[in-house]
Amino acid sequence: MRLDGSADAGRPGALDEAAIIERFFRRPSARDDVLLGIGDDAALLAPPAGQALAVAVDTLVEGTHFHLGTDPRALGHRVLAVNLSDLAAMGAEPAWCLLSLSLPRPDPAWLAGFADGFFALADRHGVALVGGDTVRGPLAATVTVHGFVPAAQACRRSGARPGDGIWVTGTPGDAVAGRLAQADGADAGDPALAALLARFLYPEPRVAAGLALRGLASAMIDVSDGLHQDLARLLVASGAGGELVVEALPLSAALTARAGGEAAALALTGGDDYELCFTLPEHHAGQLVERARAWDFPVTRIGTVTAGSGLTLLRAGQPCALPPGSYRHF
Amino acid sequence: MRLDGSADAGRPGALDEAAIIERFFRRPSARDDVLLGIGDDAALLAPPAGQALAVAVDTLVEGTHFHLGTDPRALGHRVLAVNLSDLAAMGAEPAWCLLSLSLPRPDPAWLAGFADGFFALADRHGVALVGGDTVRGPLAATVTVHGFVPAAQACRRSGARPGDGIWVTGTPGDAVAGRLAQADGADAGDPALAALLARFLYPEPRVAAGLALRGLASAMIDVSDGLHQDLARLLVASGAGGELVVEALPLSAALTARAGGEAAALALTGGDDYELCFTLPEHHAGQLVERARAWDFPVTRIGTVTAGSGLTLLRAGQPCALPPGSYRHF
Repeated sequence: MRLDGSADAGRPGALDEAAIIERFFRRPSARDDVLLGIGDDAALLAPPAGQALAVAVDTLVEGTHFHLGTDPRALGHRVLAVNLSDLAAMGAEPAWCLLSLSLPRPDPAWLAGFADGFFALADRHGVALVGGDTVRGPLAATVTVHGFVPAAQACRRSGARPGDGIWVTGTPGDAVAGRLAQADGADAGDPALAALLARFLYPEPRVAAGLALRGLASAMIDVSDGLHQDLARLLVASGAGGELVVEALPLSAALTARAGGEAAALALTGGDDYELCFTLPEHHAGQLVERARAWDFPVTRIGTVTAGSGLTLLRAGQPCALPPGSYRHF
Repeated sequence: MRLDGSADAGRPGALDEAAIIERFFRRPSARDDVLLGIGDDAALLAPPAGQALAVAVDTLVEGTHFHLGTDPRALGHRVLAVNLSDLAAMGAEPAWCLLSLSLPRPDPAWLAGFADGFFALADRHGVALVGGDTVRGPLAATVTVHGFVPAAQACRRSGARPGDGIWVTGTPGDAVAGRLAQADGADAGDPALAALLARFLYPEPRVAAGLALRGLASAMIDVSDGLHQDLARLLVASGAGGELVVEALPLSAALTARAGGEAAALALTGGDDYELCFTLPEHHAGQLVERARAWDFPVTRIGTVTAGSGLTLLRAGQPCALPPGSYRHF
C-alpha cells in the first residue's frame, strides 16, 4: 500500500490505506520546491542550485526504541526529530521528508495523535511530507529527511583538530533521566520531573544552532547514543584524541535533583539527548558566543581536542574511568 | 545504531552494527555526485542542475510481503527493485539510495546473501548506497531511492487523455503464478515453473523502458498491486475512463501452461509484476515500437483511454466483470 491517496478497491476495511493518507497525512505544503508531492509513484522535488543535498534516514521500532504504550503524539514527534537532528549536525536546512509507517492495524485515534506530533514539528521547521508508504506489520516508523547545505560549509565529523575546543548544546542527561523516571513510575505531577520527561518525549532538534554553526564548527555530531560514545566517534572520524572535563558538563538542576551523584554519568552515557556536540577552533569562540545569544539553551565548552587518539575523561585534573553504573542505551 | 562505520563500544557482540556496516554495506561508489557517503550524520549529494529529483520509499515486512524462509538474496534484490520500479514509472534515472534494516539478530550468512542481492541490482543500475540505519526489531527493510528527471518529461499518473492507447510492458501474471506455485510446493525442477519463480523472486525494474518512454507516454504507473487496480488508479488520477481488452493481455506461455483459464485473471489482479502500465497518444506509437526494439520483453497495447470514468473490461467486445477467483494481493 502506498501513500498515494488513490482508491484501494482491493482491500476494503473500516479505514483503508487511501483513507489513512487522505485523512491523516496528505496536507498542502507552502514549499514551492515540491513539484509533485504525495500521490504518484515518486515525489518530484527541485533542489536549489549550488548546495549539497543532505539526506538521512532513521527507524524507530516498538520494543527497541519505544514501548507499546508510548503516546503516539510523542512518537510522531520523535521519529521526525531524530532525523532533523541528523540534518542539524551537518549544518543543513531541512526541507522535505518521507515517512514509512508499519502498523499492526489502523487505529484512527492513534493515527491522529501520531500525525499531530509529526506535523507540529514539521511545520515548525518548514518541512514538507512529500511521500511515503504504509504497510501492515509490527509497529515501526522510518523517516527519510532531506536538507540543503553549501558543500564547503557542511559540518562533517572529520574536521576536528588538536587545540579545538569541544562543546555541547543544552543539558545532556535530562532525556535519559526522564525515561528512567517514567519507567520507575515516578510522580508525573512533579514539575522538575515533568521537565525531564518532556526532554525525553519531545526532544527538540537543534536545527537553528546547526545552521548558526556553519563556518564555525570544525566538526559536529548529534548526541543520540550518549555524549561519550558520540564524541568518541567524532574523534575517531577526525583522527584525533580528546580530553573531556567531567566538572564542566552542563548538568540541569532537574537532573542533579533527580540523579544526584549519578548525574554526570547519565549526561555522559544516557543518550536520547539530540543535542549537538561540536569542535571549535579557538579563534571562533567569540563568534559562537555572539550567535548563541539567540538560543534558549546553553552552549558549553567541555573539553579540548588533542593529538593522538582516544577520549580521556578528566576529573579534578586527573584521568578517570567512565563512572560505574553508566546507563546502557536501551 | 547507524550505518556510520564507527566503533560502537556500548554494544559488544559477535557482530555489532559497525561490523555489519563495514563488512556488508560500505562499498566504494564510482559516482562523483556522492560528496559524502556512509559514515556521518547525513550523506551529502550533488543533484544535477536543471533536473527534478524523484524520490520514493518502500518497505517490505516479514509476514506481510515475504515469508521468513525467503532467500535473503531475493529479499535484498526485491527491496531495491520495488523502489527502482517507482523511479522507472516516473521516467527517472536512478542515482542514490538509503537502506534501513530491522533485524531480530545479525546473522552473517543472511546479511551476506541480502547484501549480494542488493548490490548486484544496485551495480547494474549504477545506484550508490549512501546511508541508512540498522535497528534491532522484527525483520523488515525500507529503501529510499533518488533519481533524476527533467521536470517537464516526468511521467506522472495524471496525463492520460481520451483516445490514448493503454500499454503494458512484459507479461503480467507471471510473478503471482510463481508465488502460488511456490506456496503449493510445486516441482522446482520444471523449467517453465522456474521461469515464473524467477519473475516472482527477482522482479526486474523496467528502468531503461521508463527512460525510453520520456516524452512519449502521457501517463505511467508501475504494476505492483495488480494491473487492474494500478491502471484504475492511473485513470482516476487522470480524470479519465478506460477500456481494457482481455484478449489483448500479453500472457506468457509459462503462465498459460500453469494457470490455464485463470491466466487472464492472474494477469489482471495478481500483482508483484513491477511492469510499467502507460498511456500513449496515437501519434507516438511508431516511436514506441522503434525504441522498444532494444528491449528483451514485449510491450503490448491492451486498451484505450476513454472519456468519463471507470475501467471497463471487454471480452469478445462486451463489457465483463473481473474474472471470478481473482487473486487477492497478499
